[in-house]
Amino acid sequence: MKPAAVQKRIEGVLAPVITPFRRDLSPDVERFVRHCRWLMKSGCAGLAVFGTNSEANSMSVEEKLELLEALVKGGVPASALMPGTGHCALSDSVKMTREAVRLGCSGMLMLPPFYYKGVSDEGLFRNFSEVIERVGDERLRLYLYHIPPVANVAITLTLIERLLARYPGIVAGAKDSSGDWNNTKAMLERFQDQGFDVFPGSEVFLLDGLRAGGKGCITATGNVNPGAISQVFKNWRSAEADKLQAGITATRGIVQKVPMIPALKSITAHFGNDPDWRTVRPPLVELTPAQEQQVISELKASGFSMPGL
Amino acid sequence: MKPAAVQKRIEGVLAPVITPFRRDLSPDVERFVRHCRWLMKSGCAGLAVFGTNSEANSMSVEEKLELLEALVKGGVPASALMPGTGHCALSDSVKMTREAVRLGCSGMLMLPPFYYKGVSDEGLFRNFSEVIERVGDERLRLYLYHIPPVANVAITLTLIERLLARYPGIVAGAKDSSGDWNNTKAMLERFQDQGFDVFPGSEVFLLDGLRAGGKGCITATGNVNPGAISQVFKNWRSAEADKLQAGITATRGIVQKVPMIPALKSITAHFGNDPDWRTVRPPLVELTPAQEQQVISELKASGFSMPGL
Repeated sequence: MKPAAVQKRIEGVLAPVITPFRRDLSPDVERFVRHCRWLMKSGCAGLAVFGTNSEANSMSVEEKLELLEALVKGGVPASALMPGTGHCALSDSVKMTREAVRLGCSGMLMLPPFYYKGVSDEGLFRNFSEVIERVGDERLRLYLYHIPPVANVAITLTLIERLLARYPGIVAGAKDSSGDWNNTKAMLERFQDQGFDVFPGSEVFLLDGLRAGGKGCITATGNVNPGAISQVFKNWRSAEADKLQAGITATRGIVQKVPMIPALKSITAHFGNDPDWRTVRPPLVELTPAQEQQVISELKASGFSMPGL
Repeated sequence: MKPAAVQKRIEGVLAPVITPFRRDLSPDVERFVRHCRWLMKSGCAGLAVFGTNSEANSMSVEEKLELLEALVKGGVPASALMPGTGHCALSDSVKMTREAVRLGCSGMLMLPPFYYKGVSDEGLFRNFSEVIERVGDERLRLYLYHIPPVANVAITLTLIERLLARYPGIVAGAKDSSGDWNNTKAMLERFQDQGFDVFPGSEVFLLDGLRAGGKGCITATGNVNPGAISQVFKNWRSAEADKLQAGITATRGIVQKVPMIPALKSITAHFGNDPDWRTVRPPLVELTPAQEQQVISELKASGFSMPGL
């Protein structure tokens, strides 16, 4: 597998887009496309649809492909899309990745297979390698998704090294949701000069990341606070940068006092005056009224808003 | 949902059937049916196809359904089947469970959705409840699959209590792969008189389980040692029982010195003189030659065999 010669990569703030469900728990295609359009016009450089915050693993491959096709048909440029395509089943990962490449998506954000625990780097290498070889498309750009607190299966530096050596240009970067800045820094120090783009998994590390060579961030709260977060990206070399960073860190602090995914949905429901947004798929549950009241009132008190929603 | 009036339930030793893959990693339907037939004639009362040891989560729903249909067409009675049908995605769990009920499978062994960690009993209750309601078939018999060392999401006693109260007769039992005898005992003490059938997830607890009211076991090594394990089930009230139990516990001890799933495949490859059995799907890897030699030579020294394979 050789990478396609020139291909612009996404840099900046990406939202792992929350997925709206109807009351019968089916994915709400129209509301999804509408939210994606709002995110793009509100500062997001790209959309990491089908991430952890998207409840992606609570959906079948078919349901995700229907949403992805609707998004591209709905006018969101595929060049701004970095869908999650990693599954436990090799066959699912191959199918989803192949279709996303066919649709022209800029990159793929790939979880390791996460059912078996304590698996070896050799086993994980084979997983990613099989996906790359079977998809067999030089346009494929793979971003490795390191989120040990949820997947419980890590993307180690050793694994990255091996994959980069075998598939340079195809293996394009990582999202680091370890919450461990030292790990993000190590990824940057070791691999950024090999065309490996690192995105911290929280805007809390956005400015530090950019200063160390990172390319932006892929962050849950990008769903509700894309404008302010993208201002840090746009102004990171300015004198204002630290102050802007402090602002978005404070907003994040309010949101993460309650469970993140239902919180993002409650916030969107409230500020968009669209109560159906609250619906989550099991095993998640929506916020309690008390939790929702807390997060909304603290956000309001901080001056938070979602203009144009 | 009311359960169908009379329906015989599986009791005895069940194997979570290992899945053969061709060298291109596609499921090998013919070899699968052959192995299932051998298991049934070698002492298994039933087959828990698509369990952890089956690499079930490394396969798509479509791949599993193809295997299941071939099995039923191939003459393995559906009344002996307890396929794994639990996935992270509600839609996948519903689809797989619905098809398995349609094919007449005796029970479904359901993992909780295992991507998100730290989820609530309420969220898990909703997951199982949605599957039961959407499948909407009174023949459904659900066995809850508790395997915290792998899934990292537990089936608590509180959750069982709630599900049993809401769906008596439909919620039919559990496989307890916690490896914690106290938990198995607690399940038995609290729920066995409500028609809740408990199967320890290892034959190490088979005799203790039967003496406490358990219905058998669902065990990895049932794939290679079904005859001896089923002898414990058949003779558990006899004077020989403890001695028989000691024998199967010793065999288990040899096998689990090396990684279990590739070990079962190596053993089957060796004793069946069928090297293709060694293939596993990523993220698993086959045994090293040294590991394989160790387990095979220790098994041979113990007098182990796989008659009729």
